[in-house]
Amino acid sequence: MFIQVLDILGTIAFAISGVLVAMNKKMDPFGVFIIAFVTAVGGGTLRDILIGATPVFWMTDMTFILVISLATVFAVLFRNYIKHLRRSLFLFDTIGIGLYTVIGIEKGLAVDLHPIICVTLGTMSACFGGVIRDILCNEIPVIFRKEVYATACILGGCVYFLLLPIIEDSNIIFLVSGIVVIAARLLAVIFKVTLPSLYANKNTE
Amino acid sequence: MFIQVLDILGTIAFAISGVLVAMNKKMDPFGVFIIAFVTAVGGGTLRDILIGATPVFWMTDMTFILVISLATVFAVLFRNYIKHLRRSLFLFDTIGIGLYTVIGIEKGLAVDLHPIICVTLGTMSACFGGVIRDILCNEIPVIFRKEVYATACILGGCVYFLLLPIIEDSNIIFLVSGIVVIAARLLAVIFKVTLPSLYANKNTE
Amino acid sequence: MFIQVLDILGTIAFAISGVLVAMNKKMDPFGVFIIAFVTAVGGGTLRDILIGATPVFWMTDMTFILVISLATVFAVLFRNYIKHLRRSLFLFDTIGIGLYTVIGIEKGLAVDLHPIICVTLGTMSACFGGVIRDILCNEIPVIFRKEVYATACILGGCVYFLLLPIIEDSNIIFLVSGIVVIAARLLAVIFKVTLPSLYANKNTE
Repeated sequence: MFIQVLDILGTIAFAISGVLVAMNKKMDPFGVFIIAFVTAVGGGTLRDILIGATPVFWMTDMTFILVISLATVFAVLFRNYIKHLRRSLFLFDTIGIGLYTVIGIEKGLAVDLHPIICVTLGTMSACFGGVIRDILCNEIPVIFRKEVYATACILGGCVYFLLLPIIEDSNIIFLVSGIVVIAARLLAVIFKVTLPSLYANKNTE
Repeated sequence: MFIQVLDILGTIAFAISGVLVAMNKKMDPFGVFIIAFVTAVGGGTLRDILIGATPVFWMTDMTFILVISLATVFAVLFRNYIKHLRRSLFLFDTIGIGLYTVIGIEKGLAVDLHPIICVTLGTMSACFGGVIRDILCNEIPVIFRKEVYATACILGGCVYFLLLPIIEDSNIIFLVSGIVVIAARLLAVIFKVTLPSLYANKNTE
Repeated sequence: MFIQVLDILGTIAFAISGVLVAMNKKMDPFGVFIIAFVTAVGGGTLRDILIGATPVFWMTDMTFILVISLATVFAVLFRNYIKHLRRSLFLFDTIGIGLYTVIGIEKGLAVDLHPIICVTLGTMSACFGGVIRDILCNEIPVIFRKEVYATACILGGCVYFLLLPIIEDSNIIFLVSGIVVIAARLLAVIFKVTLPSLYANKNTE
């Protein structure tokens, strides 16, 4: 129940980020909805396709399509006010990636995949919605260029598998590793931590 | 039999639209064929992957690869004459989206999905070939920006589920809802109906 | 064993080509790794998804993620020296497409697909990693524009099915058709063979 609330908050934040990018590209209402939809469910859809969990998750649980539709209508109507919600949205978004990372990991474990693959799946669930959004909007995906985003997911994934042999209660592992993802991202943004640059002259970036 | 003829006409129209976009981008013969192919089968392929109907449809029915190959060769050879066929192509294309919408819906029903998801699947089958075409050609998908295309599919899909409880003969439902898609698109184009703009100043679009 | 060595060499070459394209786009370390990864496994992943062979191949064999990680680190550290390796990389890459083409064909045969579809699958396995790489980097895929790449795969695929009824030892068929792909590509590059242009004035390309 608690997890479902987090899931919905994350879905809303992802959908709204999709609406904002799509409206920036002057898309029509249908385009805006599609971008909101793929941003919210794209990562999990790719995860489900890769492990063969079909029909994919949003096809058998109507919550997602409902929540995304409402969030899209809300974001379109109140787009001028949304900037005041930026902090809340950032927080929801961060909760979303924490949650999706751990859900992705557990889906991988459920089909007996290697821990490294599970962490990959978790990171993909959390990040690839944004990647598909950016591709559909004809941009190089933002997470490939400057955001500490995937790194937080990978960190939380490693914590998950460090705790797995020593803690019995799987809920605690779920919670702790999700919080690690969230904390890592929040701290990275607050302290402006970025990945080390591969390029000599940062001005050219 | 009749449906198969429509299916082939739709496939031809979709493939030719792919050829025209690819040649506009000065692609080589292989690139032109690939774009024709994904335009024609991309939507149905995505549908089959999402519901787990693999191998996907064009892998088990050689008609598609044959028809697309012939249509590509034809379109490349006679590209200067194709502009005179614009009306026929538009009609075939519209028949194609009507047919694919209903086929997509029925594939969704066959695996017991919710009506809303079935309509989504149908719309996706009809529209995502063009989306993948535009992404491969490095363009923002045209249906996200200005065409009444998906809206016609969604409308036809709703008609399908309105008729489902009241008409017994599934062929009639198939036919009527397909015709609704086709009529909606034709009327939208004839009367220049567009989705309402989300942006205050249309000149900036 | 011998095939596994070839597979690793091909994976390395594909991953390094991904690193070079990604660094050209000034991506961050995470982006560079992702591009290397999708370049190396993207084609085979698409193949596995289309035929329903899930979880996809790199999820059940940790070799790939390990080799790609090492190749990425190597390529990033020694990127200034890699230009001296261009010939070796080109050779590995060519070996890679030869191998992936034949592996793709055999995966198709294993699920009883038509020879034409098997050749398509083989070509896709060999070529679509590069296509996904270019899409993620916001470029029109290079193989749609100028390289004799897919044509070599298709040629080798045809040889495979010409030999199938007349040679009993499947290892020989594997080897010969793989070598045909490799030879066709090497000869095309050495003699600067390209596909015939579809456009009257080549200067405009």
